[in-house]
Amino acid sequence: MNTIKIRHGDNISFAEAEDGISLLEAVSRVKDLHIDASCGGKGTCGMCKVKILKGELPEPSPADTKFLGRKEIDANYRLACMIPVNENFDIMVNGINEGFKILTSHSGFTGKLNSIVKKKYIILPAPSLEDQRSDLSRLLDSLTVSSIHVALPLRQSLPSILRYAEYSVTAVFSEDTLIAVEPGNTEDLNYGVAIDIGTTTIAAYLLNMETGEILDTLSDLNSQKVFGADVISRIEFSMQGQNKLSTLQEKIISQVGELSVSLSEKNGICTENIYSVVIAGNTTMIHLFFGVDPSGIAVAPFIPGFLGEISIYSGELKDFPLNCTVYSLPSISGYVGADIVSGILATKMDEREELSLLIDIGTNGEIVFGNKEKLYCCSTAAGPAFEGAHISCGLGGINGAVDSALIEDDQLIYTTIGGKKAVGICGSGIIDLVSVFLKEGLLDFTGRILDEEEVRDQFSTKFLNNLRIDNNGPAFLVVKASESGNGRDVVFTQQDIREVQLAKAAISAGILTVLNKAGRSLNEIDHVFIAGGFGSYISKKSAANIGLIPAELLDKTESVGNTAGLGALSCALSQENLNVAKKIAEITEYVELSSDSFFNMKYMEEMVFPEY
Amino acid sequence: MNTIKIRHGDNISFAEAEDGISLLEAVSRVKDLHIDASCGGKGTCGMCKVKILKGELPEPSPADTKFLGRKEIDANYRLACMIPVNENFDIMVNGINEGFKILTSHSGFTGKLNSIVKKKYIILPAPSLEDQRSDLSRLLDSLTVSSIHVALPLRQSLPSILRYAEYSVTAVFSEDTLIAVEPGNTEDLNYGVAIDIGTTTIAAYLLNMETGEILDTLSDLNSQKVFGADVISRIEFSMQGQNKLSTLQEKIISQVGELSVSLSEKNGICTENIYSVVIAGNTTMIHLFFGVDPSGIAVAPFIPGFLGEISIYSGELKDFPLNCTVYSLPSISGYVGADIVSGILATKMDEREELSLLIDIGTNGEIVFGNKEKLYCCSTAAGPAFEGAHISCGLGGINGAVDSALIEDDQLIYTTIGGKKAVGICGSGIIDLVSVFLKEGLLDFTGRILDEEEVRDQFSTKFLNNLRIDNNGPAFLVVKASESGNGRDVVFTQQDIREVQLAKAAISAGILTVLNKAGRSLNEIDHVFIAGGFGSYISKKSAANIGLIPAELLDKTESVGNTAGLGALSCALSQENLNVAKKIAEITEYVELSSDSFFNMKYMEEMVFPEY
Repeated sequence: MNTIKIRHGDNISFAEAEDGISLLEAVSRVKDLHIDASCGGKGTCGMCKVKILKGELPEPSPADTKFLGRKEIDANYRLACMIPVNENFDIMVNGINEGFKILTSHSGFTGKLNSIVKKKYIILPAPSLEDQRSDLSRLLDSLTVSSIHVALPLRQSLPSILRYAEYSVTAVFSEDTLIAVEPGNTEDLNYGVAIDIGTTTIAAYLLNMETGEILDTLSDLNSQKVFGADVISRIEFSMQGQNKLSTLQEKIISQVGELSVSLSEKNGICTENIYSVVIAGNTTMIHLFFGVDPSGIAVAPFIPGFLGEISIYSGELKDFPLNCTVYSLPSISGYVGADIVSGILATKMDEREELSLLIDIGTNGEIVFGNKEKLYCCSTAAGPAFEGAHISCGLGGINGAVDSALIEDDQLIYTTIGGKKAVGICGSGIIDLVSVFLKEGLLDFTGRILDEEEVRDQFSTKFLNNLRIDNNGPAFLVVKASESGNGRDVVFTQQDIREVQLAKAAISAGILTVLNKAGRSLNEIDHVFIAGGFGSYISKKSAANIGLIPAELLDKTESVGNTAGLGALSCALSQENLNVAKKIAEITEYVELSSDSFFNMKYMEEMVFPEY
Repeated sequence: MNTIKIRHGDNISFAEAEDGISLLEAVSRVKDLHIDASCGGKGTCGMCKVKILKGELPEPSPADTKFLGRKEIDANYRLACMIPVNENFDIMVNGINEGFKILTSHSGFTGKLNSIVKKKYIILPAPSLEDQRSDLSRLLDSLTVSSIHVALPLRQSLPSILRYAEYSVTAVFSEDTLIAVEPGNTEDLNYGVAIDIGTTTIAAYLLNMETGEILDTLSDLNSQKVFGADVISRIEFSMQGQNKLSTLQEKIISQVGELSVSLSEKNGICTENIYSVVIAGNTTMIHLFFGVDPSGIAVAPFIPGFLGEISIYSGELKDFPLNCTVYSLPSISGYVGADIVSGILATKMDEREELSLLIDIGTNGEIVFGNKEKLYCCSTAAGPAFEGAHISCGLGGINGAVDSALIEDDQLIYTTIGGKKAVGICGSGIIDLVSVFLKEGLLDFTGRILDEEEVRDQFSTKFLNNLRIDNNGPAFLVVKASESGNGRDVVFTQQDIREVQLAKAAISAGILTVLNKAGRSLNEIDHVFIAGGFGSYISKKSAANIGLIPAELLDKTESVGNTAGLGALSCALSQENLNVAKKIAEITEYVELSSDSFFNMKYMEEMVFPEY
C-alpha cells in the first residue's frame, strides 16, 4: 500500500493506494474531494492536473504535453490519470469543487398518503402448552396475512425480540415483506429516504412516512464523477478490467448510504427507523448502483441489462449502512431511465387530456411527449455541453462559474455563482452568452463568430475587446485573465459554439421527432415542462433565443425542478404512485433516434441558430 | 491466537484457538476429529478426556476428580471442556471415533419425477435497434413466465453471459426463482443434494435431477456433537453467550457444504451444476442450520422460532460453498421436525386407509399414528439412552461397540462393530443385553439386577462371572478388562437399566397416548414402521422382549431405514411431494405429552418390563 498525501486549499488529506492504480483513482478515494475528470481517466480531457511535490516525476506523457503548457510541465504539473502509483506521493490539487449548486427543489408531494412501508403495533397472545405455535406463526396469524416474505436475519432474531418485548411488538412491512419487528409500540417512527442519482449530482430527501412530510434534503456531486463525466465514460471505465464495475458500485452505494445516514443524524432520527430507500436515476446509474454490467448500453443497439423495478434487502448491497428495503423505480430504455419515469409521474403528463412536453436536460437530454392516451419518449446525446463538459472553459455549477450574462450599454455583464471571481462558465451562462452574441450579431445564424474585420465594419470599436483571436481561431473573451479567479482568460471559442449547436440541434430535433411520431405539431402542445437543474437555472428566454426551446412555446414553458427526486419520493409515500410508475415504464413508447431518418434530417436542419 | 497441537492415533493436527475458549472447543475445530462430549462441555459427562503433554496443567477440577481416576490425573489427563485456552498446548486425544455406522439406506425414490429444479435451453432473438428489450426481458419473454424472482448476482452477470453465449443459453429455475443462466445447452447437467441433519449423524444424497437417480451417498457425524449429544445440550450451548449460536451454525453449514462438495467431486460433477440442497432434520437442527435462536424449544411451553419451510439463496448462508437454492422442509412442532414430516411422506402413512404407526428413535423418540383421515404425533425424551448416551459404557455405533448379544450354552456371546475388541455398548447391544438378561431371569420385571445370592440360589455358579458388584452397586459384566479393547471392563449397570426403563417407558407410553387421542387400540394397527439407524440395527424381537415395541405388533413391524433422507430426496425430485410435505406439516396434530395426564399415568405403568 502506498500513501498519497494530498494538499487541497488549506487542507491535507491522505489516500491509501495499492500498486498500479492511477493517481487519479487514488485521489478519488478522498471523501468530499472532487476532481472534474470528464473523460474518466483516459487522458483526453486534461482536467485532472496535479502538482507533484514528492514522488517520482514521470516524463510528460503525450496527454500532459497536449493539455499542460511547457511552464506547467516544468513546474511539475502532470495529469493525475496518467501516473501509475507505485510509491508514496505528495501532491497538490487545484480546482476542488466547492459550493456546487444542486437542484433539490420541487413542487412537493400532493398525493394521498399510502406509504410503501407500514407499521402495525400488536399484542400477541403469550404461548402456552395449549398454544404452541411458533414465534413466526404467532406473529403472522396476528397480522392476518397469509403469504409474506420474511428475510433470514429477521427469522433469526424474532424469538429473542418477542421474548424481550413480552409479545408486544410493532411489525414493519414493505409490500409483501416483513422488514422488521420492534419491541413495544413504535408506529410513529417511520422514515424513508428518496434519492435521485444523477450522473453529475445526487439529491436525497428524508421523508416522514407516517405524515408524508419531506423533512430535509441533502445533495452532493456524484462521487463516480472522477471516473467520467457522462454515462458513456462511466460505462467505458466499468469495462476497463476486473473490479472496475465494483469500484463504481462501491462508490455510489457508500455515497447513498452516507447521505442517508447524514440526513438521519441531522434530524435526530435513528437509522434503524429508516425502512426504505427509493431510488430514481438514469438507466446507467441504476445499473451501476446494483452492480449490473451496463456495457450493452454503450454501443448499438443500446441494450440494458434490465429495466424493471428492483426491490431488495439492503443486506445484498455490500457495506450499505442501513437495514432497509432498497427500491429502484423502473426505466423505459437504456437512455430513458427511472428519472424520466419519475418526471412523467411528477408532472402527471400521463393523466392529462392536453398534450404536454417534458424536457430533462441533465447530462443527457431526454424528451417525453403525449397525454393520457399515449406517451412517446426519446433521448439525445445533448447534455454534456450544457453541464460544462466539452466546453473549453466549461464548468459545472460551482462557485466562480459564470451563470448569467447580458449586454448593457454595449458592455458584456455577467454574474458568477457565489459572486466569486470567474473561473469558467456553466450551462446557464453558456446559453446566455450564445443568446447575447447571437442577438447582437457577433455570431451569425450558422454559428460563425465574426472576425475582427467584420466586427470593425459593423460595430466600429464596440465589442472589439470581447473578441480574442489566437492560433486556435476566434473566440469570445468573457473575462480577462486579470479579472478572473485563476489568472487565465475565460473564453468561449468557436469550437464551443459548435458544441452548443450540436447539443441544441439534438434537443430540438428530438422534440420534432417525437411530435412527428405522434402525428402532432408544435402548436398543439399545451404545456412544456423543463425538468432538472439546468431547466431551473437557465433563462428560458435565452434558451428560446438560441432555438433550444421552440420560440412559440416560450409562454407555455415552466421549470418544474427536480422531478426525478419528486417522483421517487412520491412513490415512497404512495403505493398507488409506485404502481403508476410501473405502468408508465410499460406503456411509454421509446423512439430510437440513432436509426431514425426523420431525426437525422431534422438534426442537420436544427444545427443553425434562429436568424436575428 | 494460540496453537493447539493435537496427537490422535498416528496423526497430528493443529487448531487455532483464541484466548478464553475451552480446549474442547479448540479441538472441535479439527476436521474429521470427533470427540463424544454428550454434555456439550459442561463437565457432566466426563467424555472429553485428553492428556496434556505441554502447556499449563491446571489443578484437577471437581469434574476431573469425578470422572478421572487418581492414576489418570497423575498421568496429566484432564477433561478438555474444563481447560480454558490461554497459551499453546500440546495434547493427546483418545477415543477418536472411527468407522461410525450411519444409516443412509432407504427404500428408494419411486414417485413420478418432477424435480424442483428445471432447466430449459433457449435461443434468444439477438437484439437490434428494432428490438431493444433489456437482457432480462428478452430472457423472461422467451421463457414465457410473467412473474419470477431473479436474484441480484444473476442480474449482475446476465448481460455478459448472454453476450458470451451469443444468446443461446440454458435457464435454470427452482419454483418461482431463476437460479442461473448458463451458456449453451446444459440441460442434462442438473444435480441436487438431499440432506438429513440428525443430532448425531448427517446423511447426504447426490441426486441426478434429470433422471431421478440417486447417484451417491455420504455420511458423517454431526460436527456439532462436541457441543452436546442431544438437542437440549446444543440449545443450552447456543445460549451460553454471544456467537455461540453462530458457532453452531457455522459448524453445520460448513459440514453440509463439505459433504455436498465431496459428493460432487467424487462423482466428477461440477459444483456449479448442483442447484438445490434440500434439508430435513429435527426442528432444532434446522433452527441451528439457519442460525435461528432455538432457545424457546428448550423450555416449556417449547416454542420454536418457526416451523414452515424455508427457501433461500445459499449466498445468505455465510461461507456456504455452493451457489444454489437451499430448501428446508417444514416441521410440525418444536420436537417433531422435518425429519418426521419426511418419514410420514416416505412411508405414505398419510395416503393409507389402514392405520399405521411410525416410530423414529434417534436422539429423541418421535411417534406418528393414523391414516389418511387423520394423523397424530408426539415426541418423547427417549433417545439418548439408545444412542449410548447416559449409559456408563454407552457408545454410538463406532468400531468396537457391542452391537448384539445372546446367551448360548449359558455363555454370553456378543458381536462388535467392525469385529474389533469391545470398548463399549451401542443401542442395539443395549436392547439385546436387557432382553437376554430379562429372559434368563437375571433381571426381574421391575428392572432390578439379581444379587449374587439370588443368582447362586437360582443358577448355582452359572452366570456368576457375568455379575460384578462394587461400590456403585450391581452390574452385568459384559466384557472383562483383559478381553476389552481399552483395558477396562465393559459393564452394564443397574443405573443403565434404569435409563433403559425410562426410555422404553417413554416410547411405549407415547404410543399408547397417541392411540388414546385417536380413540384407537393396538390391535387396530395394520403396520409399524421403525425409522432411523436405531430401527435398522436393533433386533425387533429383543425390542419386543423388553416392551419397547408392543409384542402383539412384532409381526407387523418393518424397519424402513432413513426415511428422513428418503423424504428429503423425494421432495427434491418431486414438486408434488414437496406440496404433500407442506400439507403433512399443516394437518398432523401434535400431542404435547408433558401436560398429558394419560401419558404420565402410562409412563409410570410402562416403566416395568414384561414378565417372563
